[in-house]
Amino acid sequence: MPSSQTQPRIGVAGVSGYAGAELARILLRHPRLAGTPPAFLGRMGEPADAVRLTDMHPQLAGLPGADACEVTNWTWHTLEQEGINFLLLATPHEQSRAWVPEALARGLRVVDLSGAWRLHDAENRAVYRFDTPEEKLAAATQAEAVYGSPELHGPEIAKARLVANPGCYATSIILALAPILRANLADLDCGIICDAKSGVSGAGKSSTPTTHFMYAADNLSAYAIFGHRHTGELLEQLHVNAEQIQFTPHLLPIPRGILSTVYVPLVEKRSADEIQACFDEFYAQAQLVRVRSSPALPQIQYVVRTPFCDLGFGLSPSGKRLVIVSCLDNLLKGAASQAVENMNLMLGWPETEGLL
Amino acid sequence: MPSSQTQPRIGVAGVSGYAGAELARILLRHPRLAGTPPAFLGRMGEPADAVRLTDMHPQLAGLPGADACEVTNWTWHTLEQEGINFLLLATPHEQSRAWVPEALARGLRVVDLSGAWRLHDAENRAVYRFDTPEEKLAAATQAEAVYGSPELHGPEIAKARLVANPGCYATSIILALAPILRANLADLDCGIICDAKSGVSGAGKSSTPTTHFMYAADNLSAYAIFGHRHTGELLEQLHVNAEQIQFTPHLLPIPRGILSTVYVPLVEKRSADEIQACFDEFYAQAQLVRVRSSPALPQIQYVVRTPFCDLGFGLSPSGKRLVIVSCLDNLLKGAASQAVENMNLMLGWPETEGLL
Amino acid sequence: MPSSQTQPRIGVAGVSGYAGAELARILLRHPRLAGTPPAFLGRMGEPADAVRLTDMHPQLAGLPGADACEVTNWTWHTLEQEGINFLLLATPHEQSRAWVPEALARGLRVVDLSGAWRLHDAENRAVYRFDTPEEKLAAATQAEAVYGSPELHGPEIAKARLVANPGCYATSIILALAPILRANLADLDCGIICDAKSGVSGAGKSSTPTTHFMYAADNLSAYAIFGHRHTGELLEQLHVNAEQIQFTPHLLPIPRGILSTVYVPLVEKRSADEIQACFDEFYAQAQLVRVRSSPALPQIQYVVRTPFCDLGFGLSPSGKRLVIVSCLDNLLKGAASQAVENMNLMLGWPETEGLL
Amino acid sequence: MPSSQTQPRIGVAGVSGYAGAELARILLRHPRLAGTPPAFLGRMGEPADAVRLTDMHPQLAGLPGADACEVTNWTWHTLEQEGINFLLLATPHEQSRAWVPEALARGLRVVDLSGAWRLHDAENRAVYRFDTPEEKLAAATQAEAVYGSPELHGPEIAKARLVANPGCYATSIILALAPILRANLADLDCGIICDAKSGVSGAGKSSTPTTHFMYAADNLSAYAIFGHRHTGELLEQLHVNAEQIQFTPHLLPIPRGILSTVYVPLVEKRSADEIQACFDEFYAQAQLVRVRSSPALPQIQYVVRTPFCDLGFGLSPSGKRLVIVSCLDNLLKGAASQAVENMNLMLGWPETEGLL
Repeated sequence: MPSSQTQPRIGVAGVSGYAGAELARILLRHPRLAGTPPAFLGRMGEPADAVRLTDMHPQLAGLPGADACEVTNWTWHTLEQEGINFLLLATPHEQSRAWVPEALARGLRVVDLSGAWRLHDAENRAVYRFDTPEEKLAAATQAEAVYGSPELHGPEIAKARLVANPGCYATSIILALAPILRANLADLDCGIICDAKSGVSGAGKSSTPTTHFMYAADNLSAYAIFGHRHTGELLEQLHVNAEQIQFTPHLLPIPRGILSTVYVPLVEKRSADEIQACFDEFYAQAQLVRVRSSPALPQIQYVVRTPFCDLGFGLSPSGKRLVIVSCLDNLLKGAASQAVENMNLMLGWPETEGLL
Repeated sequence: MPSSQTQPRIGVAGVSGYAGAELARILLRHPRLAGTPPAFLGRMGEPADAVRLTDMHPQLAGLPGADACEVTNWTWHTLEQEGINFLLLATPHEQSRAWVPEALARGLRVVDLSGAWRLHDAENRAVYRFDTPEEKLAAATQAEAVYGSPELHGPEIAKARLVANPGCYATSIILALAPILRANLADLDCGIICDAKSGVSGAGKSSTPTTHFMYAADNLSAYAIFGHRHTGELLEQLHVNAEQIQFTPHLLPIPRGILSTVYVPLVEKRSADEIQACFDEFYAQAQLVRVRSSPALPQIQYVVRTPFCDLGFGLSPSGKRLVIVSCLDNLLKGAASQAVENMNLMLGWPETEGLL
Repeated sequence: MPSSQTQPRIGVAGVSGYAGAELARILLRHPRLAGTPPAFLGRMGEPADAVRLTDMHPQLAGLPGADACEVTNWTWHTLEQEGINFLLLATPHEQSRAWVPEALARGLRVVDLSGAWRLHDAENRAVYRFDTPEEKLAAATQAEAVYGSPELHGPEIAKARLVANPGCYATSIILALAPILRANLADLDCGIICDAKSGVSGAGKSSTPTTHFMYAADNLSAYAIFGHRHTGELLEQLHVNAEQIQFTPHLLPIPRGILSTVYVPLVEKRSADEIQACFDEFYAQAQLVRVRSSPALPQIQYVVRTPFCDLGFGLSPSGKRLVIVSCLDNLLKGAASQAVENMNLMLGWPETEGLL
Repeated sequence: MPSSQTQPRIGVAGVSGYAGAELARILLRHPRLAGTPPAFLGRMGEPADAVRLTDMHPQLAGLPGADACEVTNWTWHTLEQEGINFLLLATPHEQSRAWVPEALARGLRVVDLSGAWRLHDAENRAVYRFDTPEEKLAAATQAEAVYGSPELHGPEIAKARLVANPGCYATSIILALAPILRANLADLDCGIICDAKSGVSGAGKSSTPTTHFMYAADNLSAYAIFGHRHTGELLEQLHVNAEQIQFTPHLLPIPRGILSTVYVPLVEKRSADEIQACFDEFYAQAQLVRVRSSPALPQIQYVVRTPFCDLGFGLSPSGKRLVIVSCLDNLLKGAASQAVENMNLMLGWPETEGLL
């Protein structure tokens, strides 16, 4: 863990978006950063007047330290001058893809919140259509990217130079399924169904027809059937193929939160106690996964604005069909707080530091 | 069609609830009832002051005829005096179960919107725990109850004395699956998953902890996993068993509307054209089912306050996995407008009379 | 009423927006238009493929006649060929300002839903910053424009060639205040306060930062304090000056509906009966204003998707301070249904034809 | 400040409600209470099984210390055994009225969140209809109750035995008006209008017809015109009479947050700079009031889940009419966080300890 020798100096790019605002909120309160507050980075390469963080996000005004923060444009040179040695990127995936190899070459460590580095299989990654000149460099960098799910890859994350923070939908589904699939309880021939529902912040801050209040409010819609970008993360992290798992996202008329209902046919009859034990044991050490005791089920209201993923389940009377319900806040465990979990692990700090 | 001889005289019981208010709205505008407006019935057997319909439902004020309507308590005797010969019951299932045999004995025809008469299999019906003294009479009555899905049972409905209006969730799922199951395309061994989401009006007008704004708003929750009462309707109408179909309802933070996402494994590879043709042909004569052309999908916003069920689908690249999306307004096609469809058919009128 | 001789042939421009969709819904059901359905007009002067109305607004699919409707681009020449002699314009105010003089010159009659023709005082109209070459023609046209409030100007509307349909906020406030001001009950020196709240559809269909779901949901914000464009309508229609009335709009997290709370200091002590009589008498003949009996108050839920404006009031114990609450659906009484009211009056038809 | 000698031992009654849950969240994180966590008190006098705090409020699960907390029934005797010397009461006003004299007699200090002790004028207090046997004791206690607005009464709060935490609406309006009224800028003869809008949590956790999702969603309604209980607080704290100020509350379709729009006629023409200075100076030392720089205005989204009250204003072109916009979270600055502010002051701790 090289960074434990030197004092970490954090830079955050992409603070204008929803996940970026949550990153700012968390880092401003982070007890280990009290001495060296993070630098908030705006556009790269375009000198412009700095913007006050609290003008960008008025809800942060009055938090200790927030009012003094500015969002400033940057170059690699200014990063060096500022002594930034750790980057949190909440930037579009094209930018993350282009910047990370250079950042690593300059000795920085990176947690990237975009989809740029999550997928190791080039075929899965094709959905992102990367075509920058740096794409050759990227191929080498990809090999060392660690998928930032602390519950699955904690030790590798601690040592990584580059952590690819998981997708919000992917996190909710992977945490629901990992215990069951690791225990080989699922009948994969029959196939797993993941019916996921997300609040509108998951669609990002751009004003589009589908983020218009009149489109989203009082509505529910399915989208990207058999075509959502997070599918590749499920395949790679859960070691299943596209015929074995099916994922349908829906747009919920709420600001934030994801609930995934995951249907698992079991290879043989199981009792509720066996299923409960499978989850309880898998997450015995996980501080940010709350396993509910059956028949209690998670709900979005209980996870919103928390760093937790909540899990619960129901079992059919026959004991052959399992329904798992998984909830998290797409901007926190699905983005910003999980990124800070990863940062904490990389810096040798307790995983939940600054999150509870 | 006996009623075509005599002028129908409609009585509506249970007008205080959400479905009842929609029934009132539809019947007040129904062109065939311009001469003999419906009688709105309050509690049975308790003489009390009549209430103005528009005091109960201020949104109906000013509609032609509405301001003169009263909701009055009733007995069988007053029904006879008023010449009521057709009953629409939007009452709790216990009351519907108790009243219908008597109504039929008195020569009335009935559309019942509750769950009281939908289930022919006593085991399925056990969820309603009927225990009135009339339950023996009910057994005989049950045999002649017709399940009120016009798309499935139109001719039987036209001749029926008693029509059991389908459940809201059940309607959305049955209309999604009937074409595919009738064509034997589904791999039932693997099982069908029905993930359904409903607005809060589906939970009724009673003030309970789960209908509190603070519980439902900004939230999503699954409930009644493997235990929802509408499951029996799916089994009976789709001719499948409990291992072959699985239904999970969720409470959406919207006033009205249901979206059901139905996952069907196919016995063999199919093309999107084949699936489209299956739906288009099955519903070629159905005026209140709108089949979208793939890849367009239904959304709740397009069905709310309409009498339609909208259907659409997606097919996996392998052609082996089908996702059907079905939307309707739970208070209309899932309750009041479907009840009027059934009434229209029973009275020999066009199915959509008064609905468009 | 010249149009009563010839069969009216209606054209609707601007059908893609929210008010336009409501216009289409109303006109498709309008009993007088059963023989000659309206023509839906897209952009002017740009030949392009016609779009199906029900692809633009899927919620209209299945309504009688709707599926056959197309939205087609047009020129003055095609209007003539189609025999259009009556225009409903739901277009941006710049377009309405530019087109109307030409339309009148060609013998068409017009109801314009934009703000283009509502204001006779050039100073009030300055907020619209009209600068088209046609602005000279416009000055002459302005003189004959009638403000389309049927409750205030019914006879003039019937004879008009051009009716300027009122603003949504303005309608709610003018109908609240007209009875009190006509009766000279208000203490104008002290000033009237209009605190108005509107759903998001009032902000139009464009995707902007303030119509983003994440901005509007779970929020309330005041805007355009002392600067909203509808203020001029209040001044001209209520014959007050800018020091005597004050109007603050707010953005509500709901799709549609306006509630205006209007505070009126009274010149002398009044009883609730006197105030009630003032409203009841003023609106005795108005079929689309529902005056509630004090202390009952209107609510948005009771007017949404209706053509009514609901009014109610509270009076201080001292009898010197009056609060009027006024509710309407901004897309109906605040736009489309009021436009059809005006069209009905201009064509010599009953005011509420097609609206109830 | 007697409590600074002995270690404070906090008891919280009424933790089951919305404000109680927020109190629990704040106190569990409060740095001064790390050694002696608060005791959560359930019903008085009824021995029953303790309930886990995180079963009552699942959203608190996983917060440090929360899982070990229980809500236990209590008597005065058990309070003594537990060493409780400071009570936070989030109980119904009747209970607060009955318990506080006894608590003071036993040497406890109290912050009461109900309306029981806020009003010194018996006529204003009549709205609460207190009729317990203890009411005679209460009269003496009332005299020493301090109204818990830290911005207005900080020094008195620090020394108080009993602090009456302000009402949510009252806080938003008092903080908006205090600077202007203290500076004698308002024309009180003409009268001040307070148009306030609150989220549904303000109506409490009971399931009632008006807290039903179907009533509140997609709606807005005014209520309690000229009759809301918080009016008395405005009169007493702002030193105005009922003819000089008028307050109308509205129910917003959002979970939490209040926006009050306050209309103030000015005695003479003022500039925006003068008004800005008036607010800035009055709140120069206030850490939990954020004065926006004109023309920026507060919005509910920026205060929800924060302990701040945000203020902004607009001034008419004539300089004679002022509109103040005031926003806060009704469960925090309007209840729980302001209660902790008061507790902090009473215990000699920094006002914002545990709140930012």
